[in-house]
Amino acid sequence: MFQEFETIVDPSKGPARLAALRAAMAQTDLDGFFVPRADAHQGEYVADADKRLQWLTGFTGSAGFCIALARVAGVFIDGRYRAQVRAQVDLSAFTPVHWPETRPGPWLAEHLPEGGRIGFDPWLHSRSEIEKIEEDLKGSAITLVPVDNLVDALWDDRPAAPQGVVRVQPIEFAGQSHGEKRAALAETLRKAGEKAAVLTLSDSIAWLLNIRGDDIPHIPVVQGFALLHDDGRVDFYTHPARPVGIGEHFGPEVSLYPEAVFEDALVALEGPVRVDKASAPFAVSAILDVAGTPVSWGQDPCVMPKACKNATELAGARAAHLRDGVALVEFLTWFDATARRGGITEIDLVVELESQRRSTNALRDISFETIAGAGPNGAIMHYRVTRETNRTLKRGELVVLDSGGQYDDGTTDITRTLPVGKVGAEERAAFTRVLQGMIAISRARFPKGLAGRDLDALARYPLWLAGQDFNHGTGHGVGSYLSVHEGPQRISRISEVALEPGMILSNEPGYYRDGAFGIRIENLIAVRAEPVPEGGDSEREMYGFETLTFVPIDTRLVLVDRLSTDERDWLNAYHAQVLEKLAPRVSSAAREWLVAACAPI
Amino acid sequence: MFQEFETIVDPSKGPARLAALRAAMAQTDLDGFFVPRADAHQGEYVADADKRLQWLTGFTGSAGFCIALARVAGVFIDGRYRAQVRAQVDLSAFTPVHWPETRPGPWLAEHLPEGGRIGFDPWLHSRSEIEKIEEDLKGSAITLVPVDNLVDALWDDRPAAPQGVVRVQPIEFAGQSHGEKRAALAETLRKAGEKAAVLTLSDSIAWLLNIRGDDIPHIPVVQGFALLHDDGRVDFYTHPARPVGIGEHFGPEVSLYPEAVFEDALVALEGPVRVDKASAPFAVSAILDVAGTPVSWGQDPCVMPKACKNATELAGARAAHLRDGVALVEFLTWFDATARRGGITEIDLVVELESQRRSTNALRDISFETIAGAGPNGAIMHYRVTRETNRTLKRGELVVLDSGGQYDDGTTDITRTLPVGKVGAEERAAFTRVLQGMIAISRARFPKGLAGRDLDALARYPLWLAGQDFNHGTGHGVGSYLSVHEGPQRISRISEVALEPGMILSNEPGYYRDGAFGIRIENLIAVRAEPVPEGGDSEREMYGFETLTFVPIDTRLVLVDRLSTDERDWLNAYHAQVLEKLAPRVSSAAREWLVAACAPI
Repeated sequence: MFQEFETIVDPSKGPARLAALRAAMAQTDLDGFFVPRADAHQGEYVADADKRLQWLTGFTGSAGFCIALARVAGVFIDGRYRAQVRAQVDLSAFTPVHWPETRPGPWLAEHLPEGGRIGFDPWLHSRSEIEKIEEDLKGSAITLVPVDNLVDALWDDRPAAPQGVVRVQPIEFAGQSHGEKRAALAETLRKAGEKAAVLTLSDSIAWLLNIRGDDIPHIPVVQGFALLHDDGRVDFYTHPARPVGIGEHFGPEVSLYPEAVFEDALVALEGPVRVDKASAPFAVSAILDVAGTPVSWGQDPCVMPKACKNATELAGARAAHLRDGVALVEFLTWFDATARRGGITEIDLVVELESQRRSTNALRDISFETIAGAGPNGAIMHYRVTRETNRTLKRGELVVLDSGGQYDDGTTDITRTLPVGKVGAEERAAFTRVLQGMIAISRARFPKGLAGRDLDALARYPLWLAGQDFNHGTGHGVGSYLSVHEGPQRISRISEVALEPGMILSNEPGYYRDGAFGIRIENLIAVRAEPVPEGGDSEREMYGFETLTFVPIDTRLVLVDRLSTDERDWLNAYHAQVLEKLAPRVSSAAREWLVAACAPI
Repeated sequence: MFQEFETIVDPSKGPARLAALRAAMAQTDLDGFFVPRADAHQGEYVADADKRLQWLTGFTGSAGFCIALARVAGVFIDGRYRAQVRAQVDLSAFTPVHWPETRPGPWLAEHLPEGGRIGFDPWLHSRSEIEKIEEDLKGSAITLVPVDNLVDALWDDRPAAPQGVVRVQPIEFAGQSHGEKRAALAETLRKAGEKAAVLTLSDSIAWLLNIRGDDIPHIPVVQGFALLHDDGRVDFYTHPARPVGIGEHFGPEVSLYPEAVFEDALVALEGPVRVDKASAPFAVSAILDVAGTPVSWGQDPCVMPKACKNATELAGARAAHLRDGVALVEFLTWFDATARRGGITEIDLVVELESQRRSTNALRDISFETIAGAGPNGAIMHYRVTRETNRTLKRGELVVLDSGGQYDDGTTDITRTLPVGKVGAEERAAFTRVLQGMIAISRARFPKGLAGRDLDALARYPLWLAGQDFNHGTGHGVGSYLSVHEGPQRISRISEVALEPGMILSNEPGYYRDGAFGIRIENLIAVRAEPVPEGGDSEREMYGFETLTFVPIDTRLVLVDRLSTDERDWLNAYHAQVLEKLAPRVSSAAREWLVAACAPI
C-alpha cells in the first residue's frame, strides 16, 4: 500500500527536544527560532530528513511551523489541523496558534515586547515569506537573523537525505527533449538580459531535465538545485551518492554536481541572475547579495511552459485517465455490490481502490492520500482516514471519494460522491446543484485572457441561489506525471493568472454540511482553443475545456427535473462517451454495471 | 430639449489657434503643451469655460487630449471617436492618435528623441495621470513641467465659469443631514490620524453638503473645491458671484469662500492632509509639498458612503424609477403604434421620449444624451444621433434605446431594444442570450465580499457558449440624483471593489454585430443583503440585487424555448410586477399596451 492508516501520536519527546533547542538558542544568543514544515524546495510533501517540525513537536500535518521562544513555543496550524495538533503535541510545552488568523509577526511582537533576535534557517524560507514577516515587525525591536539550523545540530538520528535513483522521463511522454526546453528558456533569459536563473523547485527541475525520481511520496521528483545559464547549459546539484544510471540522457550540456558545491557555484555566477522571490530559499539571494551579483526578481522560468502541456503530454493525460477510469469503474462495480451489505469501512474503500489502481500494472504511486469520508466525515474537506477515525458505511449516507494516481504518462485526480443505498432529498438537491456548477465549468467557453477568478462564479451560482457555497477553490492546476497540485493556474477567486491552452485543471465544486454530509464532484479538464461556432464572432479568440476524466457520475443522486435541457444533454453526452471509451476495457461484471450507470436520464 | 442634434464641425479655426499656442510655447521655453478635455473636477461633462480641447482643435468628444509640439500636434482619441475626430479637426494641423493603444509617454519619446520640456496645467491632471506618463518617460530626456495654462491666456472670448444657483437637496431625498455626514467623515479622518481632506470631485461635494446645481449638463453639481476638517467643519470654495440663496442650510460649520483663496487655504492647512491621487489635481499635492505639509494618499472619503445609498435614497430611487417607467411605457405605446408606419427617425424617438419624461413634470434633466440607434447604428455602442447620421427606421430592424432622467429623488438609466415589425431569427437568438445574462445578474445571490469582477461572467456565459461577447462592462455605478456613471462599484472584469448593500448599479449586457444590429437590455439594480433561504447555510452572509427598473422587456424578441424554467419564471414574475406597479399610473391607451406587453410567456 502507498497509503497508511496509522496516526503517529507521540507527544512524549517534544518537551526534552524543545529544552535542548532552547539551550542551543541561548548559546547562540537567539531569543527565538523558526522550525517550519517546509523544506528547501517548498513542495507539498517533504522527505523524512526534512520532518523537523514533526521531530520537534510531534505534529505531522502537511503545513505549519513552530516558533520557539524562551518561555513559549507556538505551533502555527491552519483550520484543517485544529484537532490533530492537540492530539499530537504536548500541550504543556507547545501552544497551538490559529494561523493565518494570527500571523507570526504580530505574535512575535506580542510575546517579545522588548524586542529580540529570532533565528531562521535561510534555506527553509522564501524571500517573500521573510519580507512579509519583517513588514509585520516594523516598529518593533525584533530582528530576523539567518543562522545554521539548530534542529539539524540536535537531531542525532536524523534520516539520510534522499539519494534514490534518477529515471528518465522518455520523450514519448515528455514530448520535448530537455535540449529543446533548455534552448527555449535560455532564449527567455537572453531576452530579459539575464545571465542565469536559479531553479529550486523540484518539479521545475524534473520537468526541465525530463527526469523523475522517488525522493518524496506522491510526487515523482529528484531533489536538488539547478542553475540554468543563458546559453542553455544546466548545472544540477544533487545528492552525490545517487545511482544516476541514466546513461547519455543528460549529454554534454547538463552537468551533475554534489549539492555541497551549490553555494560556491552561486558565488561564481555572473549577474543579473533570475531568482523567484516566492519560492527560492532566502539563502540564494542572500549569497548573491554578498557576492555583489545583481539579482533579477522574476518567476521561475519553468513554471509557465510546465503548466501549458504539449500535445504529447495531453495525449498521455488522456491515456492515463482512461486507465485510471477503468480502475474506478471496477471499484464502483465492487462498491455497488458490496457497500449496502454492511460492515464496509472507509479504509476498505481506500484499500480496494488502491488495489484496483495497482491492477493496471502502471501505477507508480497514488498522487495523494485518498480521501474517503462517509457521512459526517465527508464534510471534512481534507479528511484522511486513520484507524481511529475509520467509519463503517451506513445506509442512507454519502461517501466522498477523492483520489488519484501517478502514471508515467500522467497524473490523475478524481472525486465521486457515492450513495450507500437511498439518500435523502436534501442531499440529492445539493448534489444536483454541485453537478450544475461542475457542468457549467465543463461546458464553458470564454475569451482568451481570462483568469480562473473570472470563471469561479459559474461553478458556484447554482449553490448561491440556494444560499449555499463551498469554502475551497473550484480547481487547481495538475502536473504531467508531477505534482497533483501545480501552479500557477487555478479556478479560484484568488487566481489572476490567465488561462492558457494546455493547462490542466481540476473542476471540483462541492458542498459540505458540518456534522452531516459532504459532496464533491471532480473531473480534470484541459484548456484548449475552441473554434468559433456558426453565428459567433469571428474575431474573438475563445477558449474552452476538454474533459479528461471519464467515470460515471451517479445519476441516482440527480434531481433530473432541476436540470436545464442543456445540462441534461451534457450529462447524457458525457455518459455516452464514458461508455464508449471504457466498455471495451473493463471486466464483464463492470461492463454490466457501466451500461446501467451510463444510461441516459 | 435637453438634447441637441447638431454637429459642430468647424475645423477652420484650429490652425491659427495652434500657431498662437506654439508661439506661446516658444516664449515660455516649452517644447510641448498638454490640452486635455478634462477640467479640475475630472467629471464626465465639462462647462463651456473648460472646453479647451474643443477651442483648440474643434474636437467635441467626451474624452481625449491634445499634445501640441512644435512640429506635430497629436489628438489622442479612443475607439469611439476615430471617425468623428477626422471630421472635426483640420488634418493638416492635427494628427489623430489612437489612444490608449498609443500612450502619451511613448509618443512623446518618439517625437522628441533629444528630450524636451512639456508643459501641463497642474489643475487639469491628477497626480496618478502625471506619474503614469513620467513612468513611461523614464530613460528619456523629456520632463513634464507644471505651468500656467497657455490656452486660457490665448482664449479671448472664453465663456465665464459656472456661477449658477445652489439648491438644497432636501433631507426627504438625501436621508441624512450634511451635519451627520460631516461628523461621520470627520471620525474617519481622526481614526486615520489625518487633519483634513481635500475634496475636488463635484459630486462628492454635492453629496456631502446636500446641495445640487446646474453648472454642468446632465450632472446636477455645483463646481468648486472643499476642505473637510477633522472636527467636521467644511470650507467650500466656489465662484463668488453665485446667488447662494439657500438660507440657513449650511449653518455655522460650513463656510463659503471664493475659489480664488483656495490655494492660500491649502497652504495654511496642518497635515497630514488626505488627497486622492486618482482624482485630485496635481496642483493640490504640489502646493502641499511646497508648504511642507504631509500628504496622506487615500481615497476621497465621500466616495464609499456616497456609493452606498441609505434607505431614503433607495426609496427615492424606487419612486424615480416608477415615474420614469411611466414615461417609458407611454413612449413604447406610441412607438408600437407609430414605428411600423414608416418615416419615423432616430431623432423622432429621442424627441418623443424626452417629451414623455418632461410630461412627468419632475424631470430636472436627462441623465445623459439618449442613444437611439436603429439597424447598424445600434451596433455603435456610444452612438449619439445627429442630423447627419439620423436614420429612418426600417421594418425588420432593431432599435437600441438607452436613456435616463434626473429627478430630485433619483437618477435613472434604462435600455430597451425595440423591434420595428418582425425581426430575424439571428437577432432573436442573440436577444435571448443577452436576456439570459441579464436575468442571471438579476437573480444572483452571492457571498459578501465579492467584487463586480467576480460576477461579470454570469452576464456573458450564454453569449460565450455561442462564441459571442460584448466589449463593454456589464454594469456601472449610478448616483442618487447625481452622476449616472458613479464609482467605485462596477460589474466589470476590471472592478475589484467589493459590492456593498445600497450600491446602485446598471445591469446591461449587450450584443453588437458591426454594420448589422445592436442589442442591449438594461435595468438598474441595488445591492441588498438577502436572507438565507430554507436549507441554506445559516452562517453565510449573502447579498443579492433588488431590481429598480420596471418597464416591459419585449417578449416578441425572446426565443421562449431557449429559456430555462427559472429564467422564464423570472421574466414572467418581472412582468407581473411591472403591470402591477405601472398599470394604475399610465394612460388608458398605455394600459392596454402594457397588459399585452406583460402577458406571461
